[in-house]
Amino acid sequence: MTLLPDPASARAARLACREGAPRPTAGMAPGFTQCNMISLPKDWAWDFLLYAQRNPKPCPVLDVTDPGSHRSALAPDADLRTDIPLYRIWRDGVLAEETPDATAAWAEHPDLVTFLIGCSFTFETPLQQAGIEMRHIAEGCNVPMFLTDRDCRPAGRLHGKMVVSMRPIPAGRVAEAAMISGRTPAVHGAPVHIGAPEALGIADLMRPDFGDPVQIRPGEVPVFWACGVTPQAALMASKPPFAITHAPGYMFITDVPDTHWQV
Amino acid sequence: MTLLPDPASARAARLACREGAPRPTAGMAPGFTQCNMISLPKDWAWDFLLYAQRNPKPCPVLDVTDPGSHRSALAPDADLRTDIPLYRIWRDGVLAEETPDATAAWAEHPDLVTFLIGCSFTFETPLQQAGIEMRHIAEGCNVPMFLTDRDCRPAGRLHGKMVVSMRPIPAGRVAEAAMISGRTPAVHGAPVHIGAPEALGIADLMRPDFGDPVQIRPGEVPVFWACGVTPQAALMASKPPFAITHAPGYMFITDVPDTHWQV
Repeated sequence: MTLLPDPASARAARLACREGAPRPTAGMAPGFTQCNMISLPKDWAWDFLLYAQRNPKPCPVLDVTDPGSHRSALAPDADLRTDIPLYRIWRDGVLAEETPDATAAWAEHPDLVTFLIGCSFTFETPLQQAGIEMRHIAEGCNVPMFLTDRDCRPAGRLHGKMVVSMRPIPAGRVAEAAMISGRTPAVHGAPVHIGAPEALGIADLMRPDFGDPVQIRPGEVPVFWACGVTPQAALMASKPPFAITHAPGYMFITDVPDTHWQV
Repeated sequence: MTLLPDPASARAARLACREGAPRPTAGMAPGFTQCNMISLPKDWAWDFLLYAQRNPKPCPVLDVTDPGSHRSALAPDADLRTDIPLYRIWRDGVLAEETPDATAAWAEHPDLVTFLIGCSFTFETPLQQAGIEMRHIAEGCNVPMFLTDRDCRPAGRLHGKMVVSMRPIPAGRVAEAAMISGRTPAVHGAPVHIGAPEALGIADLMRPDFGDPVQIRPGEVPVFWACGVTPQAALMASKPPFAITHAPGYMFITDVPDTHWQV
């Protein structure tokens, strides 16, 4: 293995996201930080940044753009309007459209402030290096995500429930998975819940609210991490007039190595 | 030792801060989180929250109040206007007054948003438990703090240099001090600089910009942590019309155990 991931692989992955058919980014450009995205009109930016500050496990903010900018310090040559494989356009809290190119939507509001939020994919690299299989990567699908019954702490006009991602982990490796992911608190950190899905209000692990179901084998425990799709749950609950987000699992690939976030 | 610090000790310390003669809070209510404070008119709140997001090592935000509120979730029975031993009132970036009671200043602006920011005192407890002496506590004075030549990442109208706190540590314990403090990234985390003060633009360790000088013994290395006085350097550089802060070293004592911030 090489000691540092090749920056060209992050750029190549972004180019594939920009130009290719939309596909989930799990496993793409391994070793590079992927991000959730939410763009809101400037009038809503304070409420959102405060919402993130009050809910740091689901909403760890890694970068905030200037109003109207589509550039991020996390990947200086990227264009936030085109380099995510699949975008969602939200109007009054309703998902209005999914599109691989958000340029037209971006042009509707000249003052959009964009938030890039850490993604659990960052700790999948050290989990895999520890020999812990990521089932959704093995099955070539999107990670399963669930809307829980846990309220986030509200901020201004924003409120909503927490979304979690789920990975089945062999019972003998769960503690290690908690410790490894706990070393990256800037990207969701340690699990918020281990086992007992019903205590999160999750009725059926085979029917995720976002992403795809994955097999859970005998001897495995469902492990739940706070998820960067939580802002989309806040959109649905709080109904701001306009927003652009990534589609769950279709992330923004940055130039920042995952290891940057380890404490 | 007991397993949990006594919540009554935090309340008693706050009462002493409210009613007693002003004194630095280092070593008070050990085991409870102390905070830096900055209150700004609502018009400046976005710039400041963004400044903090962009400079998380010196400005880790632990709570933000609603505009005009003097209550914090970190200590529900506290009054932010009176429970810090010594406040600073800033006008146009100039320190106008120090006072043990900020009630009158607070009344000048009905829309103040208050930010509570993590303080390095939080990791002093586990450092001391590891047998690493905190010289300023041993000498009964304020921790020495220095204005460095390192620019923070600007945000809107806010810019300024980073402030650091300094603790002399025996050379054989420095790595341990780095690792122990690194486990609490929400309260400044690991040191930003170890040894070589001249490389931070610090000319004389015996002449701190804030706080008091402490003895550095042979075989000890000056270790520098990002400091929550950094917002005050931003006030001086950026000159917002009005602000209230704590006086360096005179912190807000919360009800939250230090251990809450460990990853």
